[in-house]
Amino acid sequence: MELIFLGTGSGIPSKERNVSAIALTLLQEKNSIWLFDCGESTQHQILHTSIKPRKINKIFITHMHGDHIFGLPGLLSSRSFQGGDDLLTVYGPPGIKEYINTSLKVSGTHLLYPLSIIEITAGQLYEDETISVNCRTLDHGIQSYGFRIVEKDKAGELLVDKLKDAGIDPGPIYQKIKDNPTVTTVDGQQIQREDFVGPNKKGRVISILGDTRASHEYESFVKHSDVLVHEATFNQDKEDMAKQYSHSTTTQAAYFAKESNVKKLVLTHISSRYQKEDNQQLLNEARHIFPNTELASDFYKVTL
Amino acid sequence: MELIFLGTGSGIPSKERNVSAIALTLLQEKNSIWLFDCGESTQHQILHTSIKPRKINKIFITHMHGDHIFGLPGLLSSRSFQGGDDLLTVYGPPGIKEYINTSLKVSGTHLLYPLSIIEITAGQLYEDETISVNCRTLDHGIQSYGFRIVEKDKAGELLVDKLKDAGIDPGPIYQKIKDNPTVTTVDGQQIQREDFVGPNKKGRVISILGDTRASHEYESFVKHSDVLVHEATFNQDKEDMAKQYSHSTTTQAAYFAKESNVKKLVLTHISSRYQKEDNQQLLNEARHIFPNTELASDFYKVTL
Ligand SMILES: [Zn+2]
Ligand SMILES: [Zn+2]
Repeated sequence: MELIFLGTGSGIPSKERNVSAIALTLLQEKNSIWLFDCGESTQHQILHTSIKPRKINKIFITHMHGDHIFGLPGLLSSRSFQGGDDLLTVYGPPGIKEYINTSLKVSGTHLLYPLSIIEITAGQLYEDETISVNCRTLDHGIQSYGFRIVEKDKAGELLVDKLKDAGIDPGPIYQKIKDNPTVTTVDGQQIQREDFVGPNKKGRVISILGDTRASHEYESFVKHSDVLVHEATFNQDKEDMAKQYSHSTTTQAAYFAKESNVKKLVLTHISSRYQKEDNQQLLNEARHIFPNTELASDFYKVTL
Repeated sequence: MELIFLGTGSGIPSKERNVSAIALTLLQEKNSIWLFDCGESTQHQILHTSIKPRKINKIFITHMHGDHIFGLPGLLSSRSFQGGDDLLTVYGPPGIKEYINTSLKVSGTHLLYPLSIIEITAGQLYEDETISVNCRTLDHGIQSYGFRIVEKDKAGELLVDKLKDAGIDPGPIYQKIKDNPTVTTVDGQQIQREDFVGPNKKGRVISILGDTRASHEYESFVKHSDVLVHEATFNQDKEDMAKQYSHSTTTQAAYFAKESNVKKLVLTHISSRYQKEDNQQLLNEARHIFPNTELASDFYKVTL
């Protein structure tokens, strides 16, 4: 599981930062990749990574501002051109359907794969045996969503030494014990799985918030995340601007991370007013409040 | 006057070639820049040039395929963000209005400059004292247009030595002679302008064709152009594919340039199947027929 930041700027692209997009690779888990936002030129950024567009089968859009969606029509088209043929589902706020359908229609684009577009409201968006995605609204002037991706806990490892000590030798019986709460061996021994399996492996939790003013209201939503991705459009001096434009500052994001008890904070959506040489200062502002903070740059990766 | 090729690929972007866009700089002539097509990431390409988006005040769209239009919403938005405030006119095939208006509406984008969108049919699109633009339909499956940009002839230079020989000394009278067919001097001498002015300075002619099968039909439209920009999606072996996909080959474009008596041919819209090492071969194929050919690459410039 890896988060790859494809665009970490705000509003307009610059030479240093493209507009918003984040890939979540689930290659081992599901042989697929999910995308969060898709600003213009996301498909161009992808050319510089190992991501294959045909592996992208879910795209979550936080909000409808152009810097988060204008890369969608191109990416959808290119995925088809490159032979992607399995279902792609786009989850986004109302308007996303009209935008995609109009773009494909006027350009005469006929996708060679099934496309499902789901206009979202707060609540659970997706769940399968291994993972779930929930969303909730934020505070950004227009409808903006945060996503909480929760991997389900996995059963612990078989305690092989303990099994051997109990006289049960390796063989197909081991898989049987793993799969069933109680198993009777050929010689009549009753095996309780809980006695021979280590503790559950905790699933990972990732929270990715769209553009927003920082607010206590969302703390329970992102609580205990392994990684929280939060915008920091402005530095700590610019609280008034952040409020006016419905964005957050570095320190607001850091206080929010602290109060929410997340393990790691990654800041993104950095205003183009800041240059490379400002990065350390932005990071220091946040780390002063919440030490385990990173400032994303384009192609920055977090491995979970 | 300069043509700057911002994207010279076909269909999908590659690391080597972005999708279609060409800038025509008219900075000395009109302090403005015109754009022909606007594929995704055109605004990103512009970041690597001296072009200021606010100077772009006309955008001509050859056809509605995604690789020629998906950069429009982003460029229009960024032009506003960067303080562009004078009229921008977009000329394009039917559907262009719905595409732009939907993109701006769903993204909540409010441009801070007036935007005019004109859905075109064949004929004259624009004319002022110094320049005109005409268009005609091509053969590309969907409506595709070619544009002929004609700079008007300028009056020749005053023949100062000849005026002095005729006893007319430098002064305000020189401007008067330049501006009027006949002028009477204070001492009653009748001056015919045509006797004292050099030959007209021929205006430049540029023809930019959208995606198309090459065809004799368009020869009169591009005739005698100083520069003809023509697509060459395929190399000479791929005539069948070119026909099937409504595109042209290198040699088809070259024969067309030859028959049309243009001065220079620039090939663009090169398929991503060709790599850097194929460029010389593509160029040779065309030069064999029409020697004054160039193969555009991204950021290639032609000065006129
Ligand atoms: Zn944004
Ligand atoms: Zn094309």
